[in-house]
Amino acid sequence: MVLLTRTCAAIEPLDAKSQEAVLAHQARLTKPAGSLGRLEALSVQLAGIQRTKTPRAEQGAVLVMAADHGVCQEGVSAFPQEVTAQMVHNFVAGGAAINVLGRLAGARVVVSDVGVASDLPDGLPVHRKKVGYGTKNMAVGPAMSREEAVAAVEAGIEVFNVEFERAPFDICATGDMGIGNTTASSAIASVITGKSPAQLTGRGTGIDDEALKRKIAVIETAIAKNAPNPGDAIEVLAAVGGFEIGALAGVILAAAARHVPVVIDGYISGAAALIAAGIAPLSRQYMIAGHVSADSGHAAMLEHLGLAPLLDLGLRLGEGTGAALSILLCRAACRILNEMATFDSAGVAEKAE
Amino acid sequence: MVLLTRTCAAIEPLDAKSQEAVLAHQARLTKPAGSLGRLEALSVQLAGIQRTKTPRAEQGAVLVMAADHGVCQEGVSAFPQEVTAQMVHNFVAGGAAINVLGRLAGARVVVSDVGVASDLPDGLPVHRKKVGYGTKNMAVGPAMSREEAVAAVEAGIEVFNVEFERAPFDICATGDMGIGNTTASSAIASVITGKSPAQLTGRGTGIDDEALKRKIAVIETAIAKNAPNPGDAIEVLAAVGGFEIGALAGVILAAAARHVPVVIDGYISGAAALIAAGIAPLSRQYMIAGHVSADSGHAAMLEHLGLAPLLDLGLRLGEGTGAALSILLCRAACRILNEMATFDSAGVAEKAE
Repeated sequence: MVLLTRTCAAIEPLDAKSQEAVLAHQARLTKPAGSLGRLEALSVQLAGIQRTKTPRAEQGAVLVMAADHGVCQEGVSAFPQEVTAQMVHNFVAGGAAINVLGRLAGARVVVSDVGVASDLPDGLPVHRKKVGYGTKNMAVGPAMSREEAVAAVEAGIEVFNVEFERAPFDICATGDMGIGNTTASSAIASVITGKSPAQLTGRGTGIDDEALKRKIAVIETAIAKNAPNPGDAIEVLAAVGGFEIGALAGVILAAAARHVPVVIDGYISGAAALIAAGIAPLSRQYMIAGHVSADSGHAAMLEHLGLAPLLDLGLRLGEGTGAALSILLCRAACRILNEMATFDSAGVAEKAE
Repeated sequence: MVLLTRTCAAIEPLDAKSQEAVLAHQARLTKPAGSLGRLEALSVQLAGIQRTKTPRAEQGAVLVMAADHGVCQEGVSAFPQEVTAQMVHNFVAGGAAINVLGRLAGARVVVSDVGVASDLPDGLPVHRKKVGYGTKNMAVGPAMSREEAVAAVEAGIEVFNVEFERAPFDICATGDMGIGNTTASSAIASVITGKSPAQLTGRGTGIDDEALKRKIAVIETAIAKNAPNPGDAIEVLAAVGGFEIGALAGVILAAAARHVPVVIDGYISGAAALIAAGIAPLSRQYMIAGHVSADSGHAAMLEHLGLAPLLDLGLRLGEGTGAALSILLCRAACRILNEMATFDSAGVAEKAE
């Protein structure tokens, strides 16, 4: 709990001075004012986060948290639970979608086991932060204890800190792996946003109509049985969350504490962002919504967080894939600011007043 | 006219065999079916265009066409006409937004003078394809003759062919520079889509309410005076177009003839795409809408073309900036296809049937 408390205490508001300096510089660049839209707003946010008028998004890191979910016993996923561990191997071997997009985006992929249901082989290069062998079935009782919820968040903070100290990065992205985790994410979103599970729940990796009905019913049962207090994000995480969701909330909090922009991926990362914002509301200012997922309900999460997504490409894969793509947009925003000529330097006439 | 005719005759439908091979391969990749949304559809399109099951978008080129517009006499732009030539110098010096984003996207920026109103200095490394010293004022009569319209389109084809033969690229993007060219683009869009100038006309680089009213009135006058046949794209281009718009239509046609995907930038490139599709409807299959511009009316152009934009970032700069960013998304789509592991190779279990 000390690490979590200390991390939250270190989160400051964005630096207004750097943001003003960026706005002034943008007005001098050889382009009509405002003509780069979201990229301009993004560079102002990045400047405020990094507390500099020359923000950078060159070195990136995607922090992928993996864990299993007891609620899979209710038949809520199209894939068997073993896939979580199998995909961890795939990440390490470099063959998953996030590996491809991480390479493209110049972002290293960092994998952590925070709760996979089986023991991963010795020597596999992943952070070992297992809080448990998967959560308990939230349709029967709480997914985890309050102590485990704090441990999951702190696992994310620790991984962030170790990686950042080992080799600093300018920007990071959240990624998840966990069969069954759209169910936990829906439940979190429902508790925190106040919308019904039916409004927020989609087909995850691809279940049919009947399974979707069952999934919604399971979420309703889990919320009714555990009845967490929406104002206590740790309690929500313990009641209906997941270890990887907690760890990603920790990543977000650690990033904010270190002045590192954090690109939020899709549905599961959105649930983690809701938890992080519940624990430390200021962390929201450090979040960039990488994309809006095709999973129904993600848009409602982003709306609740007050975030506008950069991309809308119908992605619903997770792993950090949408966030990795948006690292490229953050890099574009920074480079525009740092590399473009000004009206004076280029000898270009300005708009007539 | 021979070059244009020959180019159009070389445009074939996309290769269905390559597209089927890509669809079959995608189903084997370690991710839920369809979970990469637009990236999956994009890789299928790119495969059909390049006629291979392993499409590439590594080497790019942004073809920027610059020209001036006689209609500037009507006070339709916020910037003075000299800015067109000044920005050509800025492109060559590498200080414009498209230079920054071209570098980021791994796409060389190729600049052509197809109708700048002044003589550019000798030795400036731009393609010299001047069709005239700016168009005539379309509010008074046709912007150019039919011969000039064909010459503009052929100028774009020639630049494409010379550049492609000098150093081949996997993918290209359209870019424009020309003070006053949103006025010409609105007029083209209005004639071809049948929507009114008021529905299609925005503030371009940033005019006020009064200037916007005048701009719309000028476009209405130009269309009424010249009354081009909407079914004859060359006539539309001659009546209310621009040299750079014609040249960009030529780039699109040349790309299609050479099986090269062409990412369409914003408002001006959208008008060029309408002209290209009017000349050779099959060319539409080779187009990728890089983004939807903040300029009102661009969405209507894309809808008319049947294209869904990849990005929606509120950009309205032109130069190819939005298209350059989307080259990165095309690269992502190709690399996913070419670099991801399959369920078999990675030992990952598949969805339960």
